Amino acid sequence: MRLSRSFIPTMKETPAEAQIASHRLMLRAGLVRQTSAGIYAWLPLGYRVLRNIERIVREEQNAAGAQEVLMPTIQSAELWRESGRYDDYGKEMLRIRDRHERDMLYGPTNEEVITDLFRQSVYSYRELPQILFHIQWKFRDEVRPRFGVMRGREFLMKDAYSFDMDFAGAVVSYRTMMLAYMRTFQRMGLKAIPMEAESGPIGGDLSHEFIILAPTGESQVYYDAGFEDIDWVNAKFDYNAQDLEAFFRQMTSMYAATDEKHDVAKWDKVDPARRREGRGIEVGHIFHFGTKYTKAMNATVTAADGKHVHPEMGSYGVGVSRLVGAVIEASHDAAGIIWPDSIAPFKAAILNLRRGDAACDAMCEALYAKLGAAALYDDREERAGAKFADADLMGHPWQIIVGPRGAAAGNVELKRRATGERIELPPDAALARIA
Amino acid sequence: MRLSRSFIPTMKETPAEAQIASHRLMLRAGLVRQTSAGIYAWLPLGYRVLRNIERIVREEQNAAGAQEVLMPTIQSAELWRESGRYDDYGKEMLRIRDRHERDMLYGPTNEEVITDLFRQSVYSYRELPQILFHIQWKFRDEVRPRFGVMRGREFLMKDAYSFDMDFAGAVVSYRTMMLAYMRTFQRMGLKAIPMEAESGPIGGDLSHEFIILAPTGESQVYYDAGFEDIDWVNAKFDYNAQDLEAFFRQMTSMYAATDEKHDVAKWDKVDPARRREGRGIEVGHIFHFGTKYTKAMNATVTAADGKHVHPEMGSYGVGVSRLVGAVIEASHDAAGIIWPDSIAPFKAAILNLRRGDAACDAMCEALYAKLGAAALYDDREERAGAKFADADLMGHPWQIIVGPRGAAAGNVELKRRATGERIELPPDAALARIA
Repeated sequence: MRLSRSFIPTMKETPAEAQIASHRLMLRAGLVRQTSAGIYAWLPLGYRVLRNIERIVREEQNAAGAQEVLMPTIQSAELWRESGRYDDYGKEMLRIRDRHERDMLYGPTNEEVITDLFRQSVYSYRELPQILFHIQWKFRDEVRPRFGVMRGREFLMKDAYSFDMDFAGAVVSYRTMMLAYMRTFQRMGLKAIPMEAESGPIGGDLSHEFIILAPTGESQVYYDAGFEDIDWVNAKFDYNAQDLEAFFRQMTSMYAATDEKHDVAKWDKVDPARRREGRGIEVGHIFHFGTKYTKAMNATVTAADGKHVHPEMGSYGVGVSRLVGAVIEASHDAAGIIWPDSIAPFKAAILNLRRGDAACDAMCEALYAKLGAAALYDDREERAGAKFADADLMGHPWQIIVGPRGAAAGNVELKRRATGERIELPPDAALARIA
Repeated sequence: MRLSRSFIPTMKETPAEAQIASHRLMLRAGLVRQTSAGIYAWLPLGYRVLRNIERIVREEQNAAGAQEVLMPTIQSAELWRESGRYDDYGKEMLRIRDRHERDMLYGPTNEEVITDLFRQSVYSYRELPQILFHIQWKFRDEVRPRFGVMRGREFLMKDAYSFDMDFAGAVVSYRTMMLAYMRTFQRMGLKAIPMEAESGPIGGDLSHEFIILAPTGESQVYYDAGFEDIDWVNAKFDYNAQDLEAFFRQMTSMYAATDEKHDVAKWDKVDPARRREGRGIEVGHIFHFGTKYTKAMNATVTAADGKHVHPEMGSYGVGVSRLVGAVIEASHDAAGIIWPDSIAPFKAAILNLRRGDAACDAMCEALYAKLGAAALYDDREERAGAKFADADLMGHPWQIIVGPRGAAAGNVELKRRATGERIELPPDAALARIA
């Protein structure tokens, strides 16, 4: 994309309403604009990141055997009355009355709808287990939305729901999603740590929050260094019951807690060389809730012995739009965003430091023709300083800097945003490094 | 995907509530389920088609130089009061009051939001023209939703908005979108015809509906045979003003009208050999509306002479979820859906006619391993007849039929759904044909 013709409205000043780094940088780099309190429009640069994150989440859900559906945003109140949650949910639920005076709502979550779809469609134990997921916009009418997309009212979430014949099966589904999440977050360049969370309505230890490490995070976290070392994407764990058990044992044998649940006595037993502290942000939550909804809504399947059984369910959430902010909290500096390669809106920016100089223009156009959609070409009539500042602000992993002196010598300067490292080399060598 | 473990609830009986072919087939083949009146959940098979259609729309918008954004579903009533449409819109608009008693609405369209984003972000003629698009769920509270996803309340639409300095520029943007639409529909296997539509608020001839031909379509259409012959994807037209003018002249020189606007006197002048009649379904609408919103909402940019100018706008819609139904209306038979290759949920179905037969199982597994995500493997314990019927119903372009006699001889039967043609050949030869 040519920056001169793009819809990327960067800002020089820091917007007064933004209290945290990601909110400030998302506004300044032109990723989003607020359209109402806690509701955002995603502009081209931000939307590319959102879609990259969504793609990684989707690929890992598919790899784990989950099937994608899409439930609507507007739900009927009837189903929520069946589950008993319509009155419980309170003011965070956006309630709507349609033209026929029917009570509707903008879904804050989808346990009721998925259970209804399941009971209409699945009749036999032979069809289980199943994990269904969707990536859909949700609405929670927060009383005081803040922190940009980190705590907005309209937000994009991946939520998955598992259905199993018994608790043992539900445990396998739970561990499947846990492994999928570790791979998902690693692919985004994040260090994620699963932490035991409030166990919810049915007790037990099958409830985990996923905290990613970020120096500006909202909570203090204490964890075992072991979490930092494991390469989940290339790990030997596969999605079978045996591997998943070994994986889960390894996960739960290492200490990890936020300050709310920090247990000093246990912490003291951790080898001091392995103790790590930091700040973290919650980006996912998985939990098993058994037959809560299948019983309330009478969803059953026939077991091998002919009896009717209420399947065991779990739910598994990832905050997709929240992750855009969380990644920035985890990866930025004073000059701007530093995108991990896997989710960057553009792989590289081409900076033409002297528009109108024949050698600069020709070299930039040739680079742009080769990089295509992977590059943002800064062809604006701006000073070099403004171009450097905007490229750092937007956080492209690579900058290819084309100035008149270098161009005359047949060279460009290649800068790696994350390290600041700059080297001079011919354009083709620069392209080879980027690829 | 293995059909035995998939969430594809097919139905043998025809659902009573479905009046048209696409609605019946979408329910019977397990593509969607209604969750409230006019509101649907997309199940795995249907969602794959929806995403394929969305992908083609997106690729052609990008190829035409439009930039993708995403505006939220929930909008503030304030902007609609600014444009004057809040009171005009009537009961089709889903109006919502949030917990702070602010008037909100579920967007039925996005002229106000995009104009607001534009006026906050773009200041100079140097940044124009711009075409921004998004693919987002919308809501129109139809009094009597019907025909399945063809006339639902919550529906997915691609809407684009162009901003130009003057009318001449707006004409180029308009023609750009018209060419993009011809390519988009052709890639989905559809014959689309642009027809002059009501010119709307500002008159002129820049308003066209796109009608696709389908034997069960809602309107009678009259058109010149010339529309059937042109290969838009490989046509010589490019996105420059000169090509676009030639393209637009060709488009508008041929007769095309629905019965509402049919002009018998003009029709009589068309060479009888070139006269075509049929049924059609509207799937897109493009129109130029000038400065209606930029004036009402005071969006200006600075021209080269320093004056403030209200940009000229146009809007360009494609009914993405409606297209799933429209494609089925255009392409089905008594046995079920016939998917065009480009949007099929799976390229091929593998039909194992005798589960438990070692040769059949081995051959099917080998085919499935090679086709991967492109195949739906019918590994259910069902009779051959049920498998044939379901494969025809779901409409996969190819069926690879593996029976014990053929397998023993090292052969499969390959069936092309569109023609019914069946040939016996070795598995590798079948894979080569499909690829």
